Amino acid sequence: MSEKFQHIGKSLPRVDAPGKVSGETRFVTDMHLDRMVYAYPVVSPIAFGTLNSADISAARETPGFLGAWFARDIPGENQVGVILPDQPLFAENTLRFVGDAIGIVAAETEAEAISAARSIKIDATLREPLLSINASKTAVKNKIHENNIACEHRLERGDIHAGFADADEVVEADFVTPYQEHFYLEPQGCIVDPHGDEFTVYGSIQCVFYVQKAVAKVLGLPFSRVRVIQTPTGGAFGGKEDIPSEVCARAAVAAWHLQRPVKMIYRRRDDVQWTSKRHPLQMHYKVGVSKSGKLLAAEITLEENAGAYATLSSVVSYRATMQAMGPYAIPNIQVHSTAYYTNLPPTGAFRGFGSPQATFGHERMMDILADRLGMDPVEFRLKNILKPGQETQTGHALKASVGAEATLETAAKAAQWSSKYGSEDSPDGRYRSAMGVSVCHYGNCLGAAGWSMDGAGVKIQIHRDGSISVAFGLIDMGQGALTVVTQMTAAALGVDEKRIVIMPTDTSQVPDSGPSVASRNVVMTGNAIRDAAAKLNPILVEAAAEALECAPENLDIQDDKATDSKTDNSLTFNDLCEYLYVSNRPMDTLGWWHVPALTYDANTGRGEAYFTYSYATHIIKVRVDTLTGQVGVEKVWAAHDVGKVINPAGLEGQVQGGVVQGAGWAIYENFGHDNAGRITTPNLSTYLLPTAADSVDVEAFWIEDPEPLGPWGAKGIGEPAIIPTAAAIANAVSRAVGKPLNEIPLTPERVFTALEEAPIHE
Amino acid sequence: MSEKFQHIGKSLPRVDAPGKVSGETRFVTDMHLDRMVYAYPVVSPIAFGTLNSADISAARETPGFLGAWFARDIPGENQVGVILPDQPLFAENTLRFVGDAIGIVAAETEAEAISAARSIKIDATLREPLLSINASKTAVKNKIHENNIACEHRLERGDIHAGFADADEVVEADFVTPYQEHFYLEPQGCIVDPHGDEFTVYGSIQCVFYVQKAVAKVLGLPFSRVRVIQTPTGGAFGGKEDIPSEVCARAAVAAWHLQRPVKMIYRRRDDVQWTSKRHPLQMHYKVGVSKSGKLLAAEITLEENAGAYATLSSVVSYRATMQAMGPYAIPNIQVHSTAYYTNLPPTGAFRGFGSPQATFGHERMMDILADRLGMDPVEFRLKNILKPGQETQTGHALKASVGAEATLETAAKAAQWSSKYGSEDSPDGRYRSAMGVSVCHYGNCLGAAGWSMDGAGVKIQIHRDGSISVAFGLIDMGQGALTVVTQMTAAALGVDEKRIVIMPTDTSQVPDSGPSVASRNVVMTGNAIRDAAAKLNPILVEAAAEALECAPENLDIQDDKATDSKTDNSLTFNDLCEYLYVSNRPMDTLGWWHVPALTYDANTGRGEAYFTYSYATHIIKVRVDTLTGQVGVEKVWAAHDVGKVINPAGLEGQVQGGVVQGAGWAIYENFGHDNAGRITTPNLSTYLLPTAADSVDVEAFWIEDPEPLGPWGAKGIGEPAIIPTAAAIANAVSRAVGKPLNEIPLTPERVFTALEEAPIHE
Repeated sequence: MSEKFQHIGKSLPRVDAPGKVSGETRFVTDMHLDRMVYAYPVVSPIAFGTLNSADISAARETPGFLGAWFARDIPGENQVGVILPDQPLFAENTLRFVGDAIGIVAAETEAEAISAARSIKIDATLREPLLSINASKTAVKNKIHENNIACEHRLERGDIHAGFADADEVVEADFVTPYQEHFYLEPQGCIVDPHGDEFTVYGSIQCVFYVQKAVAKVLGLPFSRVRVIQTPTGGAFGGKEDIPSEVCARAAVAAWHLQRPVKMIYRRRDDVQWTSKRHPLQMHYKVGVSKSGKLLAAEITLEENAGAYATLSSVVSYRATMQAMGPYAIPNIQVHSTAYYTNLPPTGAFRGFGSPQATFGHERMMDILADRLGMDPVEFRLKNILKPGQETQTGHALKASVGAEATLETAAKAAQWSSKYGSEDSPDGRYRSAMGVSVCHYGNCLGAAGWSMDGAGVKIQIHRDGSISVAFGLIDMGQGALTVVTQMTAAALGVDEKRIVIMPTDTSQVPDSGPSVASRNVVMTGNAIRDAAAKLNPILVEAAAEALECAPENLDIQDDKATDSKTDNSLTFNDLCEYLYVSNRPMDTLGWWHVPALTYDANTGRGEAYFTYSYATHIIKVRVDTLTGQVGVEKVWAAHDVGKVINPAGLEGQVQGGVVQGAGWAIYENFGHDNAGRITTPNLSTYLLPTAADSVDVEAFWIEDPEPLGPWGAKGIGEPAIIPTAAAIANAVSRAVGKPLNEIPLTPERVFTALEEAPIHE
Repeated sequence: MSEKFQHIGKSLPRVDAPGKVSGETRFVTDMHLDRMVYAYPVVSPIAFGTLNSADISAARETPGFLGAWFARDIPGENQVGVILPDQPLFAENTLRFVGDAIGIVAAETEAEAISAARSIKIDATLREPLLSINASKTAVKNKIHENNIACEHRLERGDIHAGFADADEVVEADFVTPYQEHFYLEPQGCIVDPHGDEFTVYGSIQCVFYVQKAVAKVLGLPFSRVRVIQTPTGGAFGGKEDIPSEVCARAAVAAWHLQRPVKMIYRRRDDVQWTSKRHPLQMHYKVGVSKSGKLLAAEITLEENAGAYATLSSVVSYRATMQAMGPYAIPNIQVHSTAYYTNLPPTGAFRGFGSPQATFGHERMMDILADRLGMDPVEFRLKNILKPGQETQTGHALKASVGAEATLETAAKAAQWSSKYGSEDSPDGRYRSAMGVSVCHYGNCLGAAGWSMDGAGVKIQIHRDGSISVAFGLIDMGQGALTVVTQMTAAALGVDEKRIVIMPTDTSQVPDSGPSVASRNVVMTGNAIRDAAAKLNPILVEAAAEALECAPENLDIQDDKATDSKTDNSLTFNDLCEYLYVSNRPMDTLGWWHVPALTYDANTGRGEAYFTYSYATHIIKVRVDTLTGQVGVEKVWAAHDVGKVINPAGLEGQVQGGVVQGAGWAIYENFGHDNAGRITTPNLSTYLLPTAADSVDVEAFWIEDPEPLGPWGAKGIGEPAIIPTAAAIANAVSRAVGKPLNEIPLTPERVFTALEEAPIHE
């Protein structure tokens, strides 16, 4: 359908903006149900030990106290591990981190619930906590689970020994990336509304179907008895992928016992202490290159800090492993990734999902290699960058939509990249500026490791008056999903987008559409919309032809009307809908799309790790204050291959946000914990999140190299926006300082130390 | 699919029974939303007049008063006429009955809302009310609307003049049937929950899509912004077909202004005064027969009391017109029906929807004709009863599922019908017993007059754990819909019915499925389920064949598993669902069915008035107390052609309930009003509803003459259960008394008078 109402590529203002601006948007914390009570978890005060008992006598004296429930009170299975069954809802014997839940308390008010929960005395036998990858790796007896390895992945392709033998240069380096706290503005929260054996869960949730499964399992109920409805979500960034399963299942236990609605909102300090973060990684790269700058072999070791439970570690490290060497052609590669349990909060999903870490590794390495070869880092990258027809590191032969080279060339041109690399000193010598470049690829959707849940659905309901409701199985968490779903529906149906309302995501409305992660929404929901439209269109055409008394083959539905191309007679979309209704045609349609089957061998890590990839280049100019070690981001040129732009304003917002969040991780956010496993940066006075004052000047460029399987050619962007940033900053700072900086965050202390250790600056 | 789990024909206990027995079922009155307030209508205290003003000064002084809104405060259109646009939501000038709404008041508590509403002083200029059909018909100037006719219908077939000329006997008679009040246990009620321009309506509602339309129109919103969710409904009987549109739209106006949830529950006395009832009818029958007992011609005039607004009168009288001469072959017929406006509450839908009235006419007439011919009433009916291949009075040639004769023969045999007609006197002569017979047909679903909304949908959601949720577009109002929908889904999918949960009816879940009326549920929802199953089955078979590695053509899904008939290998349904999930198959399916197009001419009333008919015979033995005139029902033999029995226990319940409700209308319920149009029987101390003590001994028989278009051959039963009862009682009492009783209710006064006027009993 051609479009007078052009939808794709238009900056439709965010459909959720008015409610958020006016304050009408009702977050879960704003909801109050009749007879509602409040719950709060009882948690481990220690990082590692054996639980002996919990004394609730003081809680019983708390006014408004309604009950406390522990592992023994769970009606179903005491298990919420999202992939591995290693995580009880309530610890029974072993306490594995400060914040490991032991039970749940309910009371009439929120303050009473918190107070009662805190008053419960936990008697536990302390064990020596393992607070780092190395401590976990080397522990002999002190095992957190049966052993300390949460998961492993291997990728082997070609012959690295032969590759290294052929190489003119073989370089090794270590890289370290830290925790990152999501710091979503809205903390974890939910309301569980029980009614007999039916439970409705409302919450700030990325993955409603995960929550449905967790609550059903914990309560011992069929899925049909658990309905999960997402409330508008004030940020998530991956932090509401698996965690809400715990949050909601805990509240559900209280709701089950009380048969009253139970609300639970985590306090900020507790949210930081108890919930997941970005995996810290230790990486060792050994890479061989030819003199002419061709990558020949890489041997890469990735070590992840999984925290106390495996949660999503296996898929985070799958992604890091599959993308470890970046968007480059390399014939011989071996990657080995191991995630280690530690006595810290479980690490899990965070925007990029292992990619920013791996990209930090391969992009710092690419700069180090270029330096060793005496080659321009852009030129060196261009020599190796993936092109159509070439194979990824996993041996996936790329056919189409390979915009890596275009992003690099576009960003380099825009930044006026030259042999000076933007280097300049302030006249007084105090400030040094330099540019850094970083390129990445990002496998769209869940990949081979998650293929079995990589489908998603929509339901389009056309009303008799021509208004349209859309239910979808993924969610908006602030990224703009509601707006692009509106645009894509309008485009697919050829109608005015004002007709369209997107419903809150509700497990009862659509089939299990998997998790709202992996930058999946545009690709999955867009294709599901197109599937629904493909089913609807023949019905609309048949009805319109009947009403207009013309041949269906002459009919065109676009520009909000049905037109007989022969006579130019037309029917407004409103009239068409009324005709659909009175002619007894069904007006709801389900759409579904799943990622095509992938050929992949988990033993070797070879094959189609993902069905397609987004590509991006960030070139970033930084300014280093040699007096204080402070790093400032002066300018970012961000070029993204998104296949096709759906909403330019939304896309720009994503890239702006991704860059700032990446800069935060690279420079400011200095997550810390003490020797007892207690987080020392649990709030905004200690955890330096970038603020509006730290916003950076981002110039964004779109490469539209359409993905044949993407809706209108589009690919995912939510995560690619953050992935290259930290590496580009570190490359720029390394250049400015004159010494490789292989660990972030680039705090003033770390940069200042490097400045002191660097060769004398001329 | 054959069935080890036999579902069709099994008395599955009612799935809604446990909640109703335990008290867990949450009716709308049990619901309380946060910040909820209460509303109550301001109504006309007079039956007919001109509204001058409403003085709210006293209401303003009521504690908790939040506001009062009138016609001028309606944001959209001031119109709730369900078929004709003759009914404002709030009267602007003319007041047309005691209870005609003028506005709505809201207050913090229910008592305050009622008190404030009652305190509003209505200044109006009284006009002389028209309180009967005859008063309305003969009024010259005093018009209630533009004229006093709400609607007319005509049916003309054959040549009645020729028919009467050929007749050996031509008999004329008049019949009168009264009002009937639904007296559902749960009065009208709703909660409207506003959120900006989104409104969610919860209520005791038969037709959720009618309410969606009414609220959208009154608030000036698209349908997509109004979601209607039915709460468990404690009886309806047609009384919640159109009335909830008014109730909910009124509450919605208050919710719109307050932006707070608004609850409104009508008090019983007001519910009786303000809401619809069964249409009273005056009927004149002129019928010609041959000596041999063949019906030759009929000229029938039906006059209905429509009350103050047309509401559903046009479709009620359509049905009465189309069925006026009953399930008999008659070559020449003319029917003219006119509904008159009066200054009484609007009459509307009531179980049977014009049929019990028309059946009273034709079945009393058949007895009178048999008497005139000196023929046994059963024998006379058998001579004329419709058989396959014959045409109905509208000229609809019946092809299949014509069980009229079988019902009559079955009931007559069971009752041991003889020339004595069960007549016997008690030894002391005080009590006289006699039998009466009555036969009816009932056009299934909405018929030609409502064809454009005679479609219905379901959504079947198969969960990964094998549990199944079903959303349907019709509703349960106590008739057992949830149970038969469960059975039909289990049968269609070949699975254990324990897997199935039926969701509350919600306009957002399924396409507009029209009204839940006309005994439509089994036919419409059953066929929609079969449509969904037909779409699902190939997917299930393909998946199972893949999982079992066998040829799809050998696969059979039944008995809760998928079996390869060749090897007998099988997969449990649970495993099949898990496989469906991990193989990325969509697990939701929409089903849809609509009544096939009907050939019908509205000008002549000729053609397929309905697509098929249910048939029934009631033979009833009564005992008349000659001392008091009291009538008792001794025994009922009820034979129903239902096509196919889905749930025998539910069916028996329907017939029991229908007979008792029919007996109530025939004997006890003596609805009254005074000269000012005020109802004098607004509660159970004045309106004699049959109680458990008045339950009757019903022996029920099922004729299974399958309807090819019915699901499993089934046809509707909800209304046929009540249709023949009153006529059979009147025929029996007429025989016992020895004088034709052509008007009901057969109160002691009326019967006693007849006894006095009757020829001396020998």
